[in-house]
Amino acid sequence: MGHIYDIDFHFPPILKKLKRGPQIILPKDLGIIAAFSGMNRDSIVIDAGTGSGYAAIFFATIAKKVITYEIREDFVNLAKSNIARSGLKNIILRQKDIFEGIKEKADIIILDLPNPEKIFKAKFRLRSDDSCIVVYLPNIEQVKTFVSVAEHAGFEAFVVRCFIEDLLVREIGTRPKNIGLTHTAYLIFARNKSNN
Amino acid sequence: MGHIYDIDFHFPPILKKLKRGPQIILPKDLGIIAAFSGMNRDSIVIDAGTGSGYAAIFFATIAKKVITYEIREDFVNLAKSNIARSGLKNIILRQKDIFEGIKEKADIIILDLPNPEKIFKAKFRLRSDDSCIVVYLPNIEQVKTFVSVAEHAGFEAFVVRCFIEDLLVREIGTRPKNIGLTHTAYLIFARNKSNN
Amino acid sequence: MGHIYDIDFHFPPILKKLKRGPQIILPKDLGIIAAFSGMNRDSIVIDAGTGSGYAAIFFATIAKKVITYEIREDFVNLAKSNIARSGLKNIILRQKDIFEGIKEKADIIILDLPNPEKIFKAKFRLRSDDSCIVVYLPNIEQVKTFVSVAEHAGFEAFVVRCFIEDLLVREIGTRPKNIGLTHTAYLIFARNKSNN
Amino acid sequence: MGHIYDIDFHFPPILKKLKRGPQIILPKDLGIIAAFSGMNRDSIVIDAGTGSGYAAIFFATIAKKVITYEIREDFVNLAKSNIARSGLKNIILRQKDIFEGIKEKADIIILDLPNPEKIFKAKFRLRSDDSCIVVYLPNIEQVKTFVSVAEHAGFEAFVVRCFIEDLLVREIGTRPKNIGLTHTAYLIFARNKSNN
Repeated sequence: MGHIYDIDFHFPPILKKLKRGPQIILPKDLGIIAAFSGMNRDSIVIDAGTGSGYAAIFFATIAKKVITYEIREDFVNLAKSNIARSGLKNIILRQKDIFEGIKEKADIIILDLPNPEKIFKAKFRLRSDDSCIVVYLPNIEQVKTFVSVAEHAGFEAFVVRCFIEDLLVREIGTRPKNIGLTHTAYLIFARNKSNN
Repeated sequence: MGHIYDIDFHFPPILKKLKRGPQIILPKDLGIIAAFSGMNRDSIVIDAGTGSGYAAIFFATIAKKVITYEIREDFVNLAKSNIARSGLKNIILRQKDIFEGIKEKADIIILDLPNPEKIFKAKFRLRSDDSCIVVYLPNIEQVKTFVSVAEHAGFEAFVVRCFIEDLLVREIGTRPKNIGLTHTAYLIFARNKSNN
Repeated sequence: MGHIYDIDFHFPPILKKLKRGPQIILPKDLGIIAAFSGMNRDSIVIDAGTGSGYAAIFFATIAKKVITYEIREDFVNLAKSNIARSGLKNIILRQKDIFEGIKEKADIIILDLPNPEKIFKAKFRLRSDDSCIVVYLPNIEQVKTFVSVAEHAGFEAFVVRCFIEDLLVREIGTRPKNIGLTHTAYLIFARNKSNN
Repeated sequence: MGHIYDIDFHFPPILKKLKRGPQIILPKDLGIIAAFSGMNRDSIVIDAGTGSGYAAIFFATIAKKVITYEIREDFVNLAKSNIARSGLKNIILRQKDIFEGIKEKADIIILDLPNPEKIFKAKFRLRSDDSCIVVYLPNIEQVKTFVSVAEHAGFEAFVVRCFIEDLLVREIGTRPKNIGLTHTAYLIFARNKSNN
């Protein structure tokens, strides 16, 4: 997509060396996920679906440990290869359906797969009231479904979109870029209501 | 500002417990700075000016070490108190003008102060070609000056703004918020040209 | 709202002298409605609900004739007073439910009221295949309902939102305004499918 | 551009039948110009440069009379052909430099050409204090120059950009379009200061 439309997605160095596969979460959204969830050096992060592994690798550059779930074998293989390229040692890749349940306690659970609201019927444990479930969903109907199920499960959710505008600073004049990425997905951040 | 305009800046838990002082960099911009600069668990981050310490504290939740410079004594005191509240041990706070020179090699230098282009006349060292100088500037004239000086110093810079749109998901209907934050500052990311 | 948040809605002179009442369509959206619908000196425009009459008055400065429907008596009185102030003679104000049917053929029908999709069960006639039904709706659920009913009625619809960013050009620096209006409503433009 | 990037610029019927030539002002910006300037059935509009005539034709569907200036012979010929296609009779096309002076009094003067601030050294007359000079400029440096010269000439100016976000409403889900037009130009509206 970047090449066709000449849009720069501003990949940090570690993500530039990976092989692309299925649609990825772009750095702009990864940065907002990290900042709004409070991801940090001590975080245990659970991530699904892995896809090409971009998100898991990005989170693993920040967090203590990332456990990432993927059911498709081809994606598992691509992700394995990308994790190897990244050199990171704090990623555990599981070929398994995350909705079958997560053993480890998590600070942040990030869901980039269809029907993420199924998490509320699955077994999962959060480490604290600050812990956060983050969901990446392109369509508004999906957002509504997730928010509704999350609220029934005792969670409070807010929903944002992130836009990046590129400003061209050149001798011939300064102006925003003419064509840009206007939508990737909605980001939902859900925390336990007792936290508020 | 959040209260007057009823705008939620989506502070992560660690920043919520700090005392506000001078204008801070908001989480949306902190997240983009972290993601686009490639900030990670191994990063040595240099930050100036410290102000209330919000940015330094945020970066220290991700990076290995943050060295933060501030010349105003009142801000140094506020920042000290906030750093203590945060419980973080990897922040070094210096009451000193960063443009007098930085001893340590840095992966990322983040400048949120007037005339950040003075860095190119100061002593500083970057750890690698992936290293990055990040600048936070509200006005376009400031951006142009920095980019021009950076390019003469052999750096390549890109400039972005980050917008966050909040989507309200409610029984009575789903829609974006009516009033929002439309501008904080431009973010400039400058890397050595040899890197490209 | 303009005073509380210090947001300039850029009213043209004729709208500045009117009395405010119920929520109005702002000039930014009126301009997009006019341009995208193809409103012109020969247009017969049907408008409902009248509210304070701002939209009807704006359209009447462009179109040949505006027929505007309102059921609430207090709004009818406010609109009458505003139409008198405007000095315009090409507005017909009817205290009547538009969904009871429109006698006149219209080039453009503009609906700013709840359940605008009821128009497709009402009697109305369009003057040509270029004719257009324009709908102003704040919430996405409302938009979906209207688009779905319009498509079943043989119409093709597109949906847009309009943002205006104010750039402050001052001696102390040039930058976008910090706080702004981020959402008013979605604008739907529906034309007969045979037109495409 | 529309075809390459699959962006719909939402042309109204009358503009759809014209021949493209030099870069045009898009309907979104034409609508904002009309609404914010207060263009109406009684307006005398002066427009330069004509280019392909799109803007002059759009304004002539609203205003009483449009006088449009263009110096390039090829554009004059293209504009003549487009004006003929439009069927409009209230456009006067002059192959002449607008900065040599305008005889007629104008309600709105719209400048889409380089160095529009030269208007303040040219002969022009506005019909009232509500009259307005509108300028279309892609770059911020150009905006600053125009605003500065306008203010020295006793005018008060505000500057805006207009974005249109397209919402896709489909069975498979509702979401904003992924790629869109993010910048065309800044629109400046300058009125005599005595008006405020």
